[in-house]
Amino acid sequence: WPHDGPCRPDEVALLLIDFQSDFIDADGYLAKVGGDIKPAQEAVMKVKPILEAARSAGVRVFHTREGHRPSLADLSKYKKWRSQRAGAEVGASSETGSMFLVRGSPGWDITPELAPIEGEEVIDGPGYDKFMHTDLEHCLRCAGIKYLIVAGLTTEVCVSSTVRGATERGFECLLVTDGTAATEQNHLRPHIDTMLVEGGIFGSVADAHHVLVA
Amino acid sequence: WPHDGPCRPDEVALLLIDFQSDFIDADGYLAKVGGDIKPAQEAVMKVKPILEAARSAGVRVFHTREGHRPSLADLSKYKKWRSQRAGAEVGASSETGSMFLVRGSPGWDITPELAPIEGEEVIDGPGYDKFMHTDLEHCLRCAGIKYLIVAGLTTEVCVSSTVRGATERGFECLLVTDGTAATEQNHLRPHIDTMLVEGGIFGSVADAHHVLVA
Amino acid sequence: WPHDGPCRPDEVALLLIDFQSDFIDADGYLAKVGGDIKPAQEAVMKVKPILEAARSAGVRVFHTREGHRPSLADLSKYKKWRSQRAGAEVGASSETGSMFLVRGSPGWDITPELAPIEGEEVIDGPGYDKFMHTDLEHCLRCAGIKYLIVAGLTTEVCVSSTVRGATERGFECLLVTDGTAATEQNHLRPHIDTMLVEGGIFGSVADAHHVLVA
Amino acid sequence: WPHDGPCRPDEVALLLIDFQSDFIDADGYLAKVGGDIKPAQEAVMKVKPILEAARSAGVRVFHTREGHRPSLADLSKYKKWRSQRAGAEVGASSETGSMFLVRGSPGWDITPELAPIEGEEVIDGPGYDKFMHTDLEHCLRCAGIKYLIVAGLTTEVCVSSTVRGATERGFECLLVTDGTAATEQNHLRPHIDTMLVEGGIFGSVADAHHVLVA
Repeated sequence: WPHDGPCRPDEVALLLIDFQSDFIDADGYLAKVGGDIKPAQEAVMKVKPILEAARSAGVRVFHTREGHRPSLADLSKYKKWRSQRAGAEVGASSETGSMFLVRGSPGWDITPELAPIEGEEVIDGPGYDKFMHTDLEHCLRCAGIKYLIVAGLTTEVCVSSTVRGATERGFECLLVTDGTAATEQNHLRPHIDTMLVEGGIFGSVADAHHVLVA
Repeated sequence: WPHDGPCRPDEVALLLIDFQSDFIDADGYLAKVGGDIKPAQEAVMKVKPILEAARSAGVRVFHTREGHRPSLADLSKYKKWRSQRAGAEVGASSETGSMFLVRGSPGWDITPELAPIEGEEVIDGPGYDKFMHTDLEHCLRCAGIKYLIVAGLTTEVCVSSTVRGATERGFECLLVTDGTAATEQNHLRPHIDTMLVEGGIFGSVADAHHVLVA
Repeated sequence: WPHDGPCRPDEVALLLIDFQSDFIDADGYLAKVGGDIKPAQEAVMKVKPILEAARSAGVRVFHTREGHRPSLADLSKYKKWRSQRAGAEVGASSETGSMFLVRGSPGWDITPELAPIEGEEVIDGPGYDKFMHTDLEHCLRCAGIKYLIVAGLTTEVCVSSTVRGATERGFECLLVTDGTAATEQNHLRPHIDTMLVEGGIFGSVADAHHVLVA
Repeated sequence: WPHDGPCRPDEVALLLIDFQSDFIDADGYLAKVGGDIKPAQEAVMKVKPILEAARSAGVRVFHTREGHRPSLADLSKYKKWRSQRAGAEVGASSETGSMFLVRGSPGWDITPELAPIEGEEVIDGPGYDKFMHTDLEHCLRCAGIKYLIVAGLTTEVCVSSTVRGATERGFECLLVTDGTAATEQNHLRPHIDTMLVEGGIFGSVADAHHVLVA
C-alpha cells in the first residue's frame, strides 16, 4: 500500500473516526445502545502510537466527530426514532447529564488519549460517512491528500461508510485492523474482510504493528 | 416499516441494484473474481415476484447498472489495478468476448428475468454507491420518493454502499434479505445484521415472502 | 410564488446569506477588495423587517457565514492567491486586527441588526454556494423545507451560487431584490434578471415590500 | 493563467458546455424561449479553432449536453412549469418534431461543427451545473485534470453555474469570452466580469485569439 508505489508523506493523512467518549465510555451512547465498549478502548490503545508516529513523520491528521447541533435541527426523524428505540435517543441525557451525540456535550468530545493538537483538523458532522454534509473532502483536496490511513469507531457503521465514501471520491484507504472496533464485535472481521473482496474493493488493511513499521 | 406508519404507494420505490449478467452468469465479472454466482441466481428468483407485485401496485421501479464508459475514462487507476489483480480487469474481455463491466457489453446488461420495462428507470454509474456520480437522487426527488425497497448484487459492496448513501440523504430503506447475494457468502448475514444495529441504523429488513404479503 | 400555489409556513425557510461584518463594515473584507459597502448596509435595513416578519409567522430562519478555519486548512491555494491579489488575503489581518473571513474573528460574525436568535440555524462554510461543504441541504431536508426566500451578500457571488445550488437540488427560490447587494453594483440588476430568464430558471424575485405583504 | 504557473497539457481539459442544436438552431429550445441564437452561432465559430488546437495539443476534451430522459423522470415539476411558461416546455415537440431537451432528439445533439470525436467524453445531465447529477467530477479526477478552459452556452445559465461548481471543487477555470453566448445578450458582459471580481473569484477570462496563442 499504496498500490502505485511509495508516496510522499504529504500525500497521506491519518483519519481518526469518531474516537469520542460517547463510543468509548461506560455512560456513553454506544454502551447505552447495547454496544460493547471494551474493544473500542483497546482500539484507542493501538491507535495512540500510530497517532504519535504520524505526528513525528509530519503526516497530516484529521479527527472526526459524530454529533448534532444542540437544536437537533440536523437530526432526521428516522435517526431520532431508531436511537430512542435502541435506548439512547440522540439529544437525550445520559445518567451523568451528557446529551448523547450532541455537540458540546462531554460525551461527544474526543477521548483524551487521542485528543487533537494544534495543526490537526476536526471534522464535525451528523452522518456516518464523514464525507457527507461536511468539509472533509474539501480539506483533503486543499492539502493535496491522496491516501488515507483509517482507524476509528465503529467498524461497521462510520468506518465502513467513510471508507466507502473515500473510495468513491478516489482516495485510497488503508484500514488499521486493530485500530477499529465494531458496534457488535461479530461484525468486525466480516467488515474488515469486505475491504478486500474483488482484489481490494475498498483498499487495503494492516494491523497497527505493521502500519507503525511502515 | 416504514417507521412513521403506512405510506402511499407513490412515496415508495423498488430499487434493484446491479442485477447484471456480469454478476450472475458463469462467464461474468463476479465469477471471474472468485465470487459465487449461485446465490445471485437464487436472489433473482426471489426478486422476480416482488418486481411483478411492484408493477401491479404501481410502485415505481429503478434499476441500476455498474458499468464504465467504453473509453474507460471513468475507471480510476485503482479500480483498474485491483480488478486486474482479482482476475477480471474492468474493460478486459471475457472468454465469450464481453468486456467486464463496460456499458454496451453483453455481460453488463440486466439479466432477462428482471429486465426493465417501459416506465422504469435505469441508472448507470461507475461507482458502488448508486447515488454517487449519477442522477439517482435527482430522479427520486422528482418523483417524490421517500422510502426504498432494496434488493440486489452484491450485498457487501453495491447494496451496502447504496443503502448507506440512501440513509445519509434521508431515504428510509427496507432490504430484502433473500433478494440479495454477497460476493463472498459468509459476508451476507453480517451485512444484513449491520442494517439493524443501534435500533436500525440503515433501515429495516424482511424476506421476500413478507415483502410480498405487505 | 411558489409556482404550485400557496404553501404551508413550515415548508418555507428564510435564508440569509453572509450578512457578516466582513461584507458590511468599512474595515471588512469586501471594502478592502474594492467592493461598495453602502448597498450592503441598505440591504440590511430592508431585510430586518422581513426577518422580524418571518419570526412572527413561525417561518424557519437559516443564516450562513463564509469563513475559514483559523488553521486555513480549508483555504484553497487559489482563493488565497486571488484574495491576496485583491487586497484582502483571507486570513490576513485588517487594520483593526480582525482576520479576513476567519471563523471567530470579529469581522466574520453576522451584523448585529440581523443576529440570529435561539431556534435559528447558522451554517458555516468556506464556499460561495452554501450547499457545498456544509450541512445546509441536510438541515433543510430534516425540516421538510421546499421553498426558500433568499436575501444576502453578495448578489453575484454567494447569493447567485446558492440560488443555483438550491435549484439543482429542487428547492424553489424567491430572491428579495432589495435585500441583496453586489460586490460591484452594476452586477446587481443583471444577476437579478438572470433569475428570470427562460421563464424563471432560478426561481422568482420580489422586493422587500411585496415579500412583507405576502 | 493558471495562477500557479505553467501546467502540463495533461492537467488541462477543454470543457465545451451544451453546444447543442437546441441552443443554436432556429427551431431549437433557446429560440423558442425567446433567446437570441445568433451570438450562439458566432461562439461556435470562435470555439472551432480552439477545439482543433486542443486536439492537436493532446488536451483532453469534455462535451456536455443538457437533456432529459425520454420518460422525463428527471424533469422537476418546476422546470416543466417554467419552460412551458417560457414557450418551449421540456419534452414538448418543436415544429420540426424534435422534443425540446430530450435525449435522443435531433435538437439535443451537439452541433456538427463541434461534434465529439473518439477519445472525447460526453457528459449528459438534466442540470445547469454540469457537476450536478453527472460523473463529470469523477472523470476529471480519473484523468488528473486540475485546470479547465471553458466555453459554451448559455453564459448566464449553464456556463456560469458550471464555472461556479468547478471552483467549489478546486478546478481553476479560464472562460473564453467570445466562446460563450448568453440567453439574453445584455447578460453576457456582466457574467464575464463576475468571473473577475475580488481578484478573480471564479477564475480568469481570455478571448479565443489569446487562448489559441497560448
